[in-house]
Amino acid sequence: MTLPRSTTQRDEDLIRDFHYIWHPCTQMKDHEAEPPLLIDRAEGLHLYDREGNRYLDCIASWWVNLFGHNHSHINQAITDQLQKMAHVMFAGITHQPAVDLAHKLIEWSSPNLSKVFFSDNGSTSVEVALKMSLQFWAQTGKPEKKRFVYLKGAYHGETLGALSVSGIDLFRNRFEPVLMDNLEVEGPDCLRCPYGLTRDTCKAECFEPMEKALVEEHQNIAAVIVEPLVQGAAGMKMYPPVYLEKLQATCETLRVHTIYDEVAVGFGRTGGLFVSEQLRHKPTFLCLSKGITSGYLPLAATLTEDRIYQAFYGDHDTFKLFIHSHSYSANPLACAAANATFELFAADGFWDALKERIATLKECGEMLKELPWCGEFRQTGLIGACELVRDRDTLAKFPMTQRVGYQIYKKALQRGLFLRPLGDVVYFIPPLVIDPETIRSMVTTARDCIHDVLSEV
Amino acid sequence: MTLPRSTTQRDEDLIRDFHYIWHPCTQMKDHEAEPPLLIDRAEGLHLYDREGNRYLDCIASWWVNLFGHNHSHINQAITDQLQKMAHVMFAGITHQPAVDLAHKLIEWSSPNLSKVFFSDNGSTSVEVALKMSLQFWAQTGKPEKKRFVYLKGAYHGETLGALSVSGIDLFRNRFEPVLMDNLEVEGPDCLRCPYGLTRDTCKAECFEPMEKALVEEHQNIAAVIVEPLVQGAAGMKMYPPVYLEKLQATCETLRVHTIYDEVAVGFGRTGGLFVSEQLRHKPTFLCLSKGITSGYLPLAATLTEDRIYQAFYGDHDTFKLFIHSHSYSANPLACAAANATFELFAADGFWDALKERIATLKECGEMLKELPWCGEFRQTGLIGACELVRDRDTLAKFPMTQRVGYQIYKKALQRGLFLRPLGDVVYFIPPLVIDPETIRSMVTTARDCIHDVLSEV
Ligand SMILES: Cc1ncc(COP(=O)(O)O)c(C=O)c1O
Ligand SMILES: Cc1ncc(COP(=O)(O)O)c(C=O)c1O
Repeated sequence: MTLPRSTTQRDEDLIRDFHYIWHPCTQMKDHEAEPPLLIDRAEGLHLYDREGNRYLDCIASWWVNLFGHNHSHINQAITDQLQKMAHVMFAGITHQPAVDLAHKLIEWSSPNLSKVFFSDNGSTSVEVALKMSLQFWAQTGKPEKKRFVYLKGAYHGETLGALSVSGIDLFRNRFEPVLMDNLEVEGPDCLRCPYGLTRDTCKAECFEPMEKALVEEHQNIAAVIVEPLVQGAAGMKMYPPVYLEKLQATCETLRVHTIYDEVAVGFGRTGGLFVSEQLRHKPTFLCLSKGITSGYLPLAATLTEDRIYQAFYGDHDTFKLFIHSHSYSANPLACAAANATFELFAADGFWDALKERIATLKECGEMLKELPWCGEFRQTGLIGACELVRDRDTLAKFPMTQRVGYQIYKKALQRGLFLRPLGDVVYFIPPLVIDPETIRSMVTTARDCIHDVLSEV
Repeated sequence: MTLPRSTTQRDEDLIRDFHYIWHPCTQMKDHEAEPPLLIDRAEGLHLYDREGNRYLDCIASWWVNLFGHNHSHINQAITDQLQKMAHVMFAGITHQPAVDLAHKLIEWSSPNLSKVFFSDNGSTSVEVALKMSLQFWAQTGKPEKKRFVYLKGAYHGETLGALSVSGIDLFRNRFEPVLMDNLEVEGPDCLRCPYGLTRDTCKAECFEPMEKALVEEHQNIAAVIVEPLVQGAAGMKMYPPVYLEKLQATCETLRVHTIYDEVAVGFGRTGGLFVSEQLRHKPTFLCLSKGITSGYLPLAATLTEDRIYQAFYGDHDTFKLFIHSHSYSANPLACAAANATFELFAADGFWDALKERIATLKECGEMLKELPWCGEFRQTGLIGACELVRDRDTLAKFPMTQRVGYQIYKKALQRGLFLRPLGDVVYFIPPLVIDPETIRSMVTTARDCIHDVLSEV
């Protein structure tokens, strides 16, 4: 195996990394030329390497961090819980951190949701929703309802069940032969709207294919799963609430469950705590993870309605129970971090400050729009994304092999930003506590990097 | 909804639990009569409720705890790491806790294993192995190798991919229509050996069906997955190494991958660190979780060989990379707990002391064997299991509706033991640091509970 070049100057740890670790979603050969950052500590909005170089965490460590790194309140909550009990099993046993958290989740989410099932990550929160939906129909006389509908470009995780409702070809194609037989539907594509409409004024005419699929197939459909408002991994594709309104109405009429996967958009990213609650929607299932612990520890939750719960409730010998578990379900340390996160949300002035930050990001977006390669700058709450194109008029993309996004990523690292473009979409999901000034310098630097890289392509 | 009875004496938290939480693998209606324990703190081998009652954690909180609760060394490691950085993303970035841990995992596991892929729980560690195996074959000219072989009674987790290689009907049957098309094979059943042989002297004659399946189907088989030596969720069914020797030889000859799922048996449970390493086997994939953090935090790892890794290694535009990720991959706090766990394994005298404890458990097993309902007391390392039967001669089981195991569970709680029988198998997987005296009192009390319950059935 080839080692990173100039090993003499390299840190011993980077060599061991290259020897022993297979990183997620990474072509490891890229690390021959460009080893990963070796991050030693993190503080507030910044990551620090061993030489003391700092990098702004523009994407909040894969969209998880909300209140900054090394936050005293969250640290304290974890330390306090650690002194009592790091973990205990969650069948036959309960504990206050989980009870408090479940209570808050139910209080703050859509009023139709009443039960919380804990698991460890976003993928498992989706698997739980899929399985609950399937078993519900199997136990209520409709076992033929066993397919799921998902949108093209959707991302719901990569365990095989979650991957079966994800619509990104590159992630699926190697595994297609073993995936569930679900139904992929063309979803909103607002930048390249085939109806020639815009988000502000359209009536989600693009709901057509979904409606058709549901009308024709609802007797075999258990649920529709969506990332409400923002399709993250697809490249922060954004679409208007009217699509979800239509979806909800149609699903209600046709008796199909809805799964709102708010793993990425939940917990304040869009300006309110949950999209579904903000929009007053009533998803049958709500999937949460990522920000739930403010990015400190793995934890996930699937919320659902009492009518689902009741279909599993009964005497032992009916065997109607939901048989699903993970060893670390409702880990008390993670629950403690989540409870502390809720306290920070409740702190005075937080939501107003967030509004301001969102406004600042909007303002800064104007800078990006001026770039000749900016196909669109779009924003939902504190998520901002600039889709780069080769030709602004035709919206023609750069060839994938040119790795434009990757080059911008490397340039930005040199200038102290940890960005991680999705293809050619440069996006920002900073911690929610980012101050207006840092927003400005982040976007300015990103713009310069884009400019410098693309001027030379 | 019905609340737990006599709510006046109940703790407010238990009512909230019943209102808001859906517990894993639990018929929630059982909690009307028997609410969960509300555990407030844990220390060493014991769990404490709010009234100060203590319960011996006989199954190490779902088989995860190794060195006892609230262990100062592990707590310190978590606290130290917390002050530097709770979490950072693991693509484009690495950190010392992960590097140290990967290094140790490779050092201590079978010599053929050279790469570590991190995820969050046992189920995802299995999903990763399944997906790597599938993609390996797809990328090396054998896309038809896309089925997996698993044993009857196997348990590998409950995400839909992991469930597709699990062989417990009760867990599968509601989801059968959406599971992968894999191959279930009759495995060892030593207590009721159809060949009339015993573990000590047999040559794994029961390998026959596996051999037949592999010979006939190997061209379509990606991998065989097993829980080496102990099928945990099946009821701590135990089988001899010779079965695995045959499996390894056959898989090598027929070019089929092997996945050793040591999520439950890894990390010292069997008397050595890993079963595969102890037996000098060379699994293609090794799945680890549970004990990896000594039961403090969710973390998992899938280890594999260089020849697998190399099939994914190449230039970016080959798109051969393994596209799989979880937001919290290689969480630094969890890695820190895992590194501290390795330090405890390396402490002077640990392995000798463990041997003694294993011997004590063996001794105590004799007590259980005297019970007229003991079909078998079996043991592998510090895992001991007593399979209860209605008739010792015919090994006839109790009717499931009698819930014999559940009654013993309730009786044991009253006497300060947290047992959680699997059906009618009463088993012990205590923390590895349990002292001989506590082993004795644990088994004695369990025996008395079994006696008292079954005398009245
Ligand atoms: C919308 C959505 N769902 C599910 C997931 C999967 O979560 P995890 O990575 O924790 O498995 C993600 C992660 O990026 C996500 O963005
Ligand atoms: C052998 C085995 N594999 C996989 C798993 C799944 O692990 P988790 O519960 O962390 O998803 C378990 C859990 O009990 C197990 O015993």
